[in-house]
Amino acid sequence: MSHIFKKHLEKFIEISDEEFQEVLPYFTQAHLKKKETIMEKGQICNYHYFVLEGCLRKFFINDKGVEHTTEFAIETWWITDNIAYEHLLQSEFSIQAVERSEILMISHAAQEELLTMHPKMERYFRFVYQRAYAASQMRIKYLYDYTREELYLHFCKKHPYFIQRIPQYLIASFLGFTPEYLSELRRKMLS
Amino acid sequence: MSHIFKKHLEKFIEISDEEFQEVLPYFTQAHLKKKETIMEKGQICNYHYFVLEGCLRKFFINDKGVEHTTEFAIETWWITDNIAYEHLLQSEFSIQAVERSEILMISHAAQEELLTMHPKMERYFRFVYQRAYAASQMRIKYLYDYTREELYLHFCKKHPYFIQRIPQYLIASFLGFTPEYLSELRRKMLS
Repeated sequence: MSHIFKKHLEKFIEISDEEFQEVLPYFTQAHLKKKETIMEKGQICNYHYFVLEGCLRKFFINDKGVEHTTEFAIETWWITDNIAYEHLLQSEFSIQAVERSEILMISHAAQEELLTMHPKMERYFRFVYQRAYAASQMRIKYLYDYTREELYLHFCKKHPYFIQRIPQYLIASFLGFTPEYLSELRRKMLS
Repeated sequence: MSHIFKKHLEKFIEISDEEFQEVLPYFTQAHLKKKETIMEKGQICNYHYFVLEGCLRKFFINDKGVEHTTEFAIETWWITDNIAYEHLLQSEFSIQAVERSEILMISHAAQEELLTMHPKMERYFRFVYQRAYAASQMRIKYLYDYTREELYLHFCKKHPYFIQRIPQYLIASFLGFTPEYLSELRRKMLS
């Protein structure tokens, strides 16, 4: 399945087959079962995960015991606790497979070495973070600007494939709703 | 004041005086008066701004006429509408000086050329975006997790220099409060 990763890299940088064969060994491929946890809150965050197929989510459970999903990652998206990964700290989040998933994972040390040995990967990761940052800025704008109902409508419009794939209770957890509120909203929209 | 930028670059990459002298002409230095607007919502976002001294803020006004400050940038921070800047679109935000400020600005085309001519700047910008992304992920976590009172307390603890420097009505606008609610909270905390 590594061709998915190569095709993705080629959107950002030129990379020959030979060079890709040198890059690939820095990564480990892993298969995750549905609901399998790949990172637990409190563990040292040593890995950065790239989704080849499937879907992961990042979440935390607050002091009141409420679970909040702060991020989903589908095909060709990266996910980790970025502050913890950069500084090798305990993660404040857990990461779990929403569906059966195939991923690539790279350790902090391997990523550092990859960037030193293949400086063009700096360009690739610059794009990855730049786009992720830009998207999270828009998300913050929506959190300021939209009512809960508008948040849901916007999410449906922007990510129709999520609505199909992801269980409703996780979408509720991502939007900061109770599952009951989301059901009510859906009923209202259908009527 | 370009030594501030050089010192900042040196936190991330090795750069000689000669190389820095080649990098610097890609940037323009500008002086902003207090409350001067450097980018207006609706303009094509062609610049990325780096604060040498002072403070900028990014904001938008929603359909109801309410102004929301989504970001501040103080010394050595970058600011722009990142999606609009990458794709040269109309900005969804305005950027304004909170105080008298000295900034460096770089156009989209100049940044592209800089990255091509000085690939080590890819590493620098990779770090800039990586850290900005990591910080915005934590911010999203707090928006999920904290009550409005907790948001304010956390902000005071984490950014005491902001509380000193930035007018209360802008802090209120950043935290999604009305100025009246913030005054009330401050009174409550002091009593």
